[in-house]
Amino acid sequence: MPTLVIANKLYSSWSLRPWILLRQLGIPFEEVLIPLDQPDTKARILALSPGGTVPILIDEGATVWESAAIMDYAHERWPEAGVWPKDRIARAVARSVSGEMHAGFRGLRAACPMNLGKVFAARDRGPDVERDVDRITAIWRDARKRFGAGGPFLFGAFSAADAMFAPVVTRFISYSIPVDPDTRHYMDAVIGTAAFQEWKDAALKETWVVAHDEPDEPVVTDLRPNRPGKT
Amino acid sequence: MPTLVIANKLYSSWSLRPWILLRQLGIPFEEVLIPLDQPDTKARILALSPGGTVPILIDEGATVWESAAIMDYAHERWPEAGVWPKDRIARAVARSVSGEMHAGFRGLRAACPMNLGKVFAARDRGPDVERDVDRITAIWRDARKRFGAGGPFLFGAFSAADAMFAPVVTRFISYSIPVDPDTRHYMDAVIGTAAFQEWKDAALKETWVVAHDEPDEPVVTDLRPNRPGKT
Repeated sequence: MPTLVIANKLYSSWSLRPWILLRQLGIPFEEVLIPLDQPDTKARILALSPGGTVPILIDEGATVWESAAIMDYAHERWPEAGVWPKDRIARAVARSVSGEMHAGFRGLRAACPMNLGKVFAARDRGPDVERDVDRITAIWRDARKRFGAGGPFLFGAFSAADAMFAPVVTRFISYSIPVDPDTRHYMDAVIGTAAFQEWKDAALKETWVVAHDEPDEPVVTDLRPNRPGKT
Repeated sequence: MPTLVIANKLYSSWSLRPWILLRQLGIPFEEVLIPLDQPDTKARILALSPGGTVPILIDEGATVWESAAIMDYAHERWPEAGVWPKDRIARAVARSVSGEMHAGFRGLRAACPMNLGKVFAARDRGPDVERDVDRITAIWRDARKRFGAGGPFLFGAFSAADAMFAPVVTRFISYSIPVDPDTRHYMDAVIGTAAFQEWKDAALKETWVVAHDEPDEPVVTDLRPNRPGKT
């Protein structure tokens, strides 16, 4: 069985991507979680992958690191699972917008680290974040308009494109970013998946605290109020 | 015939990637070059792709943007061309290191923008650049050691992984970054391809100047000494 190595479910946006994809598509895997910021974190990851980062997929003699690479590996390994859309034109767009997500939106990602445990108060987060939010919501709207007839996701059925954007969905919620009802409808579909609910339930049971993913901002809701102090 | 939309050959590292891949693998395409920083640049790109960036591949009703997406599109569209290595384990590694390149190495990329027209003097460029150079040369060394028996490239024959790293090869040269002889051997193989030579010859005939890709550093060699002033 394949092994997927991930980091903290509360914080690791890169880990969430392949995890939610494989789980939601029903591809069985064993999970290994290496918590961030521990004395042995770096050594444990480097023992598995020369890239020194998670996620890592280990499967039948192959080691794949980088979330985008894992998705294309999975597309070839489980061709019937629906990793990418079946239609070639939809697939081209799905890969293009996933590429935008993989390499870009640094403004949003820097200002709003993934943190499933808190909801922060709405505030003006500056033009870089605003530009990223505008482009992301345009991607979602256009994909669903062109290709979304078969379901609530970007290309109808849940695919790698939704997995790539899943951490952004959580950021929009955690940072109280205002969105239109149609965008919210899509976000609700993502967080409503069984796979995301399972991930989030586990995340909220974690007790680790990663300081640089805990912005010093007013908190509206703390979903882990009884967690231990910083470790 | 597919159309590949690119920007300035002197500066556009993202454009170089799919261009050198398709050309070196012998896949015919028509080229459209949209120069950067002109009054109509943004409008011309947006008329072709909602992402607002180059490169863009237009082929049989599909529009693919983002260099990584174009490579996986090409892998499926021309399955015999050798876009990715044929061996599944090699292909997993090729995709992983290409993913590292696609999303990372921001230190090197910010400090050393691609500029095929100049060689800058060697200097200490700081720990971020040093760390990126160390990781990149380790990727090249490990890939060639494990998978490079069949030729001078990372996975033997020229593949999308070499195309992804081609702009970095030019940066190492343009910024006089010291490398060991084995690394230089690989770099020479990349710049020695017919495709790269064709790209560079065209680049050096360009007269556009993009100010933010012209670092204010001592120049060892200026390969376009008679170019017009800034436009």
